[in-house]
Amino acid sequence: MGSILIKRAILEGVEKDILIIDEKFDRIGDEIMFEADKQIEANGKWVIPGFVNMHTHAAMTLMRGIGEDMHLIDWLENKIWPVEKRLDDEMVYWGSKLAALEMIKTGTTTFNDQYWKVTSSVKAIEESGLRSVQPFVILDQMDLSRSEQIKYDCNELYMQSKDWSNLHTFSIGIHSPYSVSKEMIKWGSDFAKERGLMVHIHLSETEWENNESFKKHGVSPTLYLEKLGVLGPEVIAAHSLWLSDQDIEILAKYQVKVVHNINSNLKIASGYKFRYNELRDAGVNVTLGTDGCASSNNLDMLEAMKTAALVQKAWRGDPTSLPLNELMNIATINGGEALGIRTGKIEEGWYADFSLVDVANYAFTPNINFLANLIYSANSSCIDTVVCNGRIVMEKRVVPGESETIENVNRLYKKLL
Amino acid sequence: MGSILIKRAILEGVEKDILIIDEKFDRIGDEIMFEADKQIEANGKWVIPGFVNMHTHAAMTLMRGIGEDMHLIDWLENKIWPVEKRLDDEMVYWGSKLAALEMIKTGTTTFNDQYWKVTSSVKAIEESGLRSVQPFVILDQMDLSRSEQIKYDCNELYMQSKDWSNLHTFSIGIHSPYSVSKEMIKWGSDFAKERGLMVHIHLSETEWENNESFKKHGVSPTLYLEKLGVLGPEVIAAHSLWLSDQDIEILAKYQVKVVHNINSNLKIASGYKFRYNELRDAGVNVTLGTDGCASSNNLDMLEAMKTAALVQKAWRGDPTSLPLNELMNIATINGGEALGIRTGKIEEGWYADFSLVDVANYAFTPNINFLANLIYSANSSCIDTVVCNGRIVMEKRVVPGESETIENVNRLYKKLL
Repeated sequence: MGSILIKRAILEGVEKDILIIDEKFDRIGDEIMFEADKQIEANGKWVIPGFVNMHTHAAMTLMRGIGEDMHLIDWLENKIWPVEKRLDDEMVYWGSKLAALEMIKTGTTTFNDQYWKVTSSVKAIEESGLRSVQPFVILDQMDLSRSEQIKYDCNELYMQSKDWSNLHTFSIGIHSPYSVSKEMIKWGSDFAKERGLMVHIHLSETEWENNESFKKHGVSPTLYLEKLGVLGPEVIAAHSLWLSDQDIEILAKYQVKVVHNINSNLKIASGYKFRYNELRDAGVNVTLGTDGCASSNNLDMLEAMKTAALVQKAWRGDPTSLPLNELMNIATINGGEALGIRTGKIEEGWYADFSLVDVANYAFTPNINFLANLIYSANSSCIDTVVCNGRIVMEKRVVPGESETIENVNRLYKKLL
Repeated sequence: MGSILIKRAILEGVEKDILIIDEKFDRIGDEIMFEADKQIEANGKWVIPGFVNMHTHAAMTLMRGIGEDMHLIDWLENKIWPVEKRLDDEMVYWGSKLAALEMIKTGTTTFNDQYWKVTSSVKAIEESGLRSVQPFVILDQMDLSRSEQIKYDCNELYMQSKDWSNLHTFSIGIHSPYSVSKEMIKWGSDFAKERGLMVHIHLSETEWENNESFKKHGVSPTLYLEKLGVLGPEVIAAHSLWLSDQDIEILAKYQVKVVHNINSNLKIASGYKFRYNELRDAGVNVTLGTDGCASSNNLDMLEAMKTAALVQKAWRGDPTSLPLNELMNIATINGGEALGIRTGKIEEGWYADFSLVDVANYAFTPNINFLANLIYSANSSCIDTVVCNGRIVMEKRVVPGESETIENVNRLYKKLL
């Protein structure tokens, strides 16, 4: 691969040189002399870990703004589902390219996806240089006649995934406890356990979902999954908004990872009283995501961080909730840990996934508190340069192929409407 | 003054030419031929009204990030008040320059301020080219021995304000019902009424304030102000977060204007159940503000719009709440109406206060719904060019004097800490 030397970057307030060799941070020091293939003069720009977006539906960038100010069922039945029937591989490819472009521009280097036509998505993301977890999604709507086909398709994609580069990890997506039969939930879980794969599931996103679970199974969605024997450290539960004390205890016991998706939760009015403190105190690894662009319009992790903190402070009536250092953790290293990838930290031996942040602008003036400025004052246009896996994916706001991606999406989205 | 011709801008989805003569929109048409002093090729950029930020403490940009994740009283007593004692005119001048820079960069052309050392602030804002309402602030902490001095100072500033350019309007700031004696509230109100001035007051920002009012006066802050004879169409009430049905009825009856400041409310954990629907339905003019940078870190109206809608949808459990067209109105024309200034609308005869929005980027791709993209997907870096009162204050993201402002704030803020 190669080497990059970053001169005079600010790391946690201190000026440092940073040497990257191949895909990892090799050395971080006061003055590094090295003939690198590429040298970047950071010149006072701050360095931060790449964000880890833990819950996305990448290609849904194609549906950005397709249904606004609508009730959930109206939105799904009249906007999303009819459109998804028309999706083809070319659309998913360009939708994923657009998602990658947007994530790079906003400082995300790793994401945990859940969507269809994964082969096209992996191709797009591989070209972009980002790291991703890509699932086979199980969603049978309780129709057991589809089981054999789903199993066959899942196995096929799993076999194909062995040819993916090491930037991409195959996972099992189980859409949710309410949309997948218990037979296929168990099958997917076993498939994952036997092969050491992660499981990505929507859990307790809405009060309706909880009520249905109590009606049908007599227990909460979390307890239902426990009963099915599905919970474990490989499970990543998105949303997890409507949790009881007992649910939290169980998620902690099984070391399930949780993804908070505040902007989507607010916009669709799913709820907002995400129990961050209780989950954290129980020892659950809490991470952050944006959800897809159909429901929450962008993939901007800085915005997700800001809203997460503001709403947590507000609903608890406690302005000390979700303080800045924890906010950075849920957006970076907690995600890396959840995915078992050494990303989310600027440290020797870790993957060189990071951004350089331009602070020479009004949003960082004065720069009394860098994290406060980054999260509460600035927007993602401060992200100047992004490196993923030791490869520069954006330099000085320029991402190769940007206009081609925009043109192709503009050509294709009309076929969806 | 002069003339500007904007060629091929997109106004509400339709390509238009826009001619500005002196400070106003002169003509909006399909193809305008005119030898203007300045011609701008908008070339597909969208045109939107300048935002009206209805509640700011501009020079508090100096204190951006000074106290984070803190309880309100700790924050006030240990961060804000000690610092404010050290403020001098030079600091307020450069703090206001920074505020103006930030507002221009984020598309705001008019703001309703409440802060100290107004002469220095007006000088800074006048140079920036923005429109503002600037108050004399009455805040006596119930100490009647200060009344004569306050009255004298107020009258002095009022006399001085006659020399301000017509971009700036003098108003009376009454800090709040809990921090100003009833004698001085009445005096300020009478002073305003006799001279046709606006009154800018913090009202029912916290539950504590309401409880205190009930304890001391037996009624809510709104009813207390009514009893004092202070309410009227000239009153602009900031925050107004803890309102009863009766309070709303009274605010409507007296045609009081209300300013929603969601980001500040959330961050300090003052509350979040702003009763937008009830105020609107009662006929109250609801407007939007950011508050100062000490409490909510930036002056970005696009962010305020997004958070306002998300939180309104969430706490009501209704995703149709605060829809896009109403969101634009509370951030633009409602503010103009509240201030009695013909701003906030792109229409012949109105002040030429507007922005050109660059949509050739990922955040507006696809551009199915421009307003959704502007508010929910993009950030303020899409604001390309800003015109206020027929004068270009930013062209292609360049604001004259930007680095000088940043340098001076960086020199001065250290004296505050």
